[in-house]
Amino acid sequence: MSETDLVELAKRRGYFFQANEAYGGVAGFYTYGPQGASLKRNVEESWRDRFVVREGNVEIDSPTVTPEPVFEASGHLDGFDDMLVECEECGESHRADHLVEDASDIEDAETYPPEEVAELLADLDLECPSCGADLAGQSVEEFNLMFETSIGPGSGQSGYLRPETAQGMFVEFPRLKEYARNQLPFGVAQIGNGYRNEISPRNALLRAREFTMAELELFVDPQEDRPDLDAVADVELPLYSAERQAADGEEYEYLTPRDALDAGVVNGEWVAYFLAVSKRWFERVGVDMDRFRFRQHLSGELAHYASDCWDAEAEIEGDWVELEGVANRTDYDLKKHADHADDNFTVFKQYDEPKTVERVTVDPDMSYLGPEFGGAAADVADALETLAERNRAAFESEDVTVEVDGEAYTVPVEKTGFSVDEVKESGEHVTPHVIEPAFGVGRVVYTVLAHALDADEVDGERRQVLRLPPEIAPTTVGVFPMMDKDGMGELARDLAADLRARGLDVTYDDSGNIGRRYRRQDEVGTPYCVTVDYESLEADTVTLRERDSTDQVRVDIDDLPHLLADLRAGELSFDDLR
Amino acid sequence: MSETDLVELAKRRGYFFQANEAYGGVAGFYTYGPQGASLKRNVEESWRDRFVVREGNVEIDSPTVTPEPVFEASGHLDGFDDMLVECEECGESHRADHLVEDASDIEDAETYPPEEVAELLADLDLECPSCGADLAGQSVEEFNLMFETSIGPGSGQSGYLRPETAQGMFVEFPRLKEYARNQLPFGVAQIGNGYRNEISPRNALLRAREFTMAELELFVDPQEDRPDLDAVADVELPLYSAERQAADGEEYEYLTPRDALDAGVVNGEWVAYFLAVSKRWFERVGVDMDRFRFRQHLSGELAHYASDCWDAEAEIEGDWVELEGVANRTDYDLKKHADHADDNFTVFKQYDEPKTVERVTVDPDMSYLGPEFGGAAADVADALETLAERNRAAFESEDVTVEVDGEAYTVPVEKTGFSVDEVKESGEHVTPHVIEPAFGVGRVVYTVLAHALDADEVDGERRQVLRLPPEIAPTTVGVFPMMDKDGMGELARDLAADLRARGLDVTYDDSGNIGRRYRRQDEVGTPYCVTVDYESLEADTVTLRERDSTDQVRVDIDDLPHLLADLRAGELSFDDLR
Repeated sequence: MSETDLVELAKRRGYFFQANEAYGGVAGFYTYGPQGASLKRNVEESWRDRFVVREGNVEIDSPTVTPEPVFEASGHLDGFDDMLVECEECGESHRADHLVEDASDIEDAETYPPEEVAELLADLDLECPSCGADLAGQSVEEFNLMFETSIGPGSGQSGYLRPETAQGMFVEFPRLKEYARNQLPFGVAQIGNGYRNEISPRNALLRAREFTMAELELFVDPQEDRPDLDAVADVELPLYSAERQAADGEEYEYLTPRDALDAGVVNGEWVAYFLAVSKRWFERVGVDMDRFRFRQHLSGELAHYASDCWDAEAEIEGDWVELEGVANRTDYDLKKHADHADDNFTVFKQYDEPKTVERVTVDPDMSYLGPEFGGAAADVADALETLAERNRAAFESEDVTVEVDGEAYTVPVEKTGFSVDEVKESGEHVTPHVIEPAFGVGRVVYTVLAHALDADEVDGERRQVLRLPPEIAPTTVGVFPMMDKDGMGELARDLAADLRARGLDVTYDDSGNIGRRYRRQDEVGTPYCVTVDYESLEADTVTLRERDSTDQVRVDIDDLPHLLADLRAGELSFDDLR
Repeated sequence: MSETDLVELAKRRGYFFQANEAYGGVAGFYTYGPQGASLKRNVEESWRDRFVVREGNVEIDSPTVTPEPVFEASGHLDGFDDMLVECEECGESHRADHLVEDASDIEDAETYPPEEVAELLADLDLECPSCGADLAGQSVEEFNLMFETSIGPGSGQSGYLRPETAQGMFVEFPRLKEYARNQLPFGVAQIGNGYRNEISPRNALLRAREFTMAELELFVDPQEDRPDLDAVADVELPLYSAERQAADGEEYEYLTPRDALDAGVVNGEWVAYFLAVSKRWFERVGVDMDRFRFRQHLSGELAHYASDCWDAEAEIEGDWVELEGVANRTDYDLKKHADHADDNFTVFKQYDEPKTVERVTVDPDMSYLGPEFGGAAADVADALETLAERNRAAFESEDVTVEVDGEAYTVPVEKTGFSVDEVKESGEHVTPHVIEPAFGVGRVVYTVLAHALDADEVDGERRQVLRLPPEIAPTTVGVFPMMDKDGMGELARDLAADLRARGLDVTYDDSGNIGRRYRRQDEVGTPYCVTVDYESLEADTVTLRERDSTDQVRVDIDDLPHLLADLRAGELSFDDLR
């Protein structure tokens, strides 16, 4: 099935479609219809179960509109750019790096400086894809991808729509650590909107300007905290390392987390752990494991904050699509905020027993330094302090010499107030490291639909079918009366209401022949259908049909609620019922 | 308990707090901490159950960033304003209408023209609340409350953060009606972010600049569709009608939906129905019904689109807070979009049997009108058509006279091509009316917390307790080992994991004495606690404690999962266990 088929089906059946089409629409904004919104919620619920509840983490909900200083600290104000060429002829905007990549063997043009990309536009004789004008000599600029707005009336205050939910968790770290009673490790997650003012949005949900993210920030003590690798020991990770990408013709290889660590392919236990947890989760929500891999970021591609990063990628129509990034962000973010903000971004780590440590102090005699060095005295005192921390041996001679603004100042050691004392310390302030699995929910939804979309033949007719896992299918069960007469309609409606009251997603349908109703549910991915017929009226049984096999079994009405709940939760398979 | 207590507790215990405080914060933006995000999700889930699932409606998910033409059509670009006075002295911004209301008996200053409010500032000798400067003579302006941004690079396209989720449902009506197979009534709901660039945000979650809304748009055929009033026949609605508000000293009165309709207090069945459904839901999530009423909008207060509107209000500390508006928006929105957009916002309503109707047509002989009237000919033809629709008797004489731009034109009737034909029509195009219950989720969360916050005395000590209903409490059960030794810790941890796997929200706590652990859970509103003690090791039983009464019962460990699930769902009461 092609992507065009998917987009057409998505629109016709209420999965997703371009927003505001009645007004011509704006590229990069999508509305999830009834089926899509439900599928998306189920994917989010499943993510929450796996990455929040089962991992013992917590979830918060922070605003999308964020004041400028946060992004000044995070680096987004300066660095969250894409390369823009705006055609002088027709005014259309294009990603300059993408034009270069499409027309050459270059794969990482986004890491080149803009001037170099501008030269490549000329060297490659590139034309504007919209109007055909020559792009040689046209300027390439960095375009910041954050949507800007103004908070409050009048001149107001600059604000931005967050490009990731992560900063909302970093900024609130001083409070979040208190909820965690100052104990590392602890994880904080968020599912919410992110925004990127893309230059050229494309591929429906894959590169949208407004999207939903699910991000977990796990704060760990890099010295002490270790993941439970035993719990994921048997997961075979499809790893496409930077090294393999560099070597021509190499494909990804399968390694367990432990083997990947031992071989130095993945270089951190937490990253290896979350690759394994993620793979299991992707399989659970319906990503085809034969079209799935983890690709390591190349060194030029690595974000400024990350020490290692792997993308979970799925193949759709020959393209690899990024679904998740698992990054070790180190202490970059918390340190940046500690530098810029007025709060404490460390955790006090109590030692099991107080430690005796030597503390070096310098307390210069300013009544000597002042008259001696005049205006430079304070700087000399600072320089002495820095020197004492770095090289205490310098204070073993009679004089100490420091340099301030290129000039040397010599101070007799007894005027420096240098001393080394033994003190007891009960603990230390640690800036946690951050391990981040970050998911694009819309991309997962799109991939799951693309991998689920299938066609086969049933009773000699072509059938379009969405093979969604029962856990995430928008509707768990379709309930039909064979015909709406002789009490079958009433019984079916009561049954639907009863199943709904037990928390199941139910569709009731009594229009058209049974075959057509089945097809309709097959096409929207409903895994089970129940039909009330004449026998139901006498024997209190119904037929239960499975979407994928189209097989039917007869079951007691009373057993239905728990059977369906167990089938949905994966605790029972349809084969058990045959 | 005071609001200050609530805000303090909310911050300390992780319900909510001002966002970005490390950077000084910006008024009107709040972050829900772990407890608050969970409470908010439970409130949303409960709303979804009541207003979407049980009503047989669907839910969608549309973008928050919306292109300008949508708000041109909806009227927000022109009319979504508040009255701003920006102090010339200190530059602080204030709501001019609020200043007037606070200093006088006027209650609806927002409905006055800005010049009049400016005069009142002078007449009332008002001063700037920030710096004390005289506000007389300072200008009052309409300030549009939508956050503006620019979509795409370069000059881009104007976009706004949606002030309500509703427009996302109206704009997509042409597609949504197809999913509903063109059958009225059908309802479409959305839970998502809304934004108002408030001039003076205040009262924490009550007047925030970014907030979550839950809105249902029910599209009905005003001629035919009727709600199921029998299902809500016994609900006593506390109604504070416009009439009672006008009469001094009158309070709200209790009426059932049917009585309120018969007495003409509520003037539409759908509005009466949703007032009743809403009241039940507010009670379910923990709004104190002794501090709750429905207040009818005064005619000056009514939104431009609404024919009737009632606000659900809750009392907090003597102030009435709006939680929900139930409005009959009539066909206003769909007609506006039909006028502005290029799509069909009606539903074709098939008649049971085709109807024979007379159709009037006019087909003027332009070869006569042209030479006769020159440039006015086309306008004359249009005028003839309009006249034929309005007054076909005019075509019974020999000549027909129409007016175009103040001039009279007379046409012989045989040149007008006038005819009346009998045609069969199979149906008609109907613009549905919209009934809208619209909730502020943050306001509900805030009210539920304010009404739940209580203090009593337990064992001679003062206890702070959040009496949240089990269905929405962030944590359903706290699991404690009496002490973490002799296997009690292991048993308690296994029990917590087991309960979690069954979908319950569980907290495990083994620190501090049991009394302190109970207090901690009381304060965050956890309705039940389970303690594993020495007896548990032998008899496989635990104590189950109820938060509100602090009573304890002994139950079998095996029974716990379903007992707790039933207690949470309200299918069992603690009294049943005594």
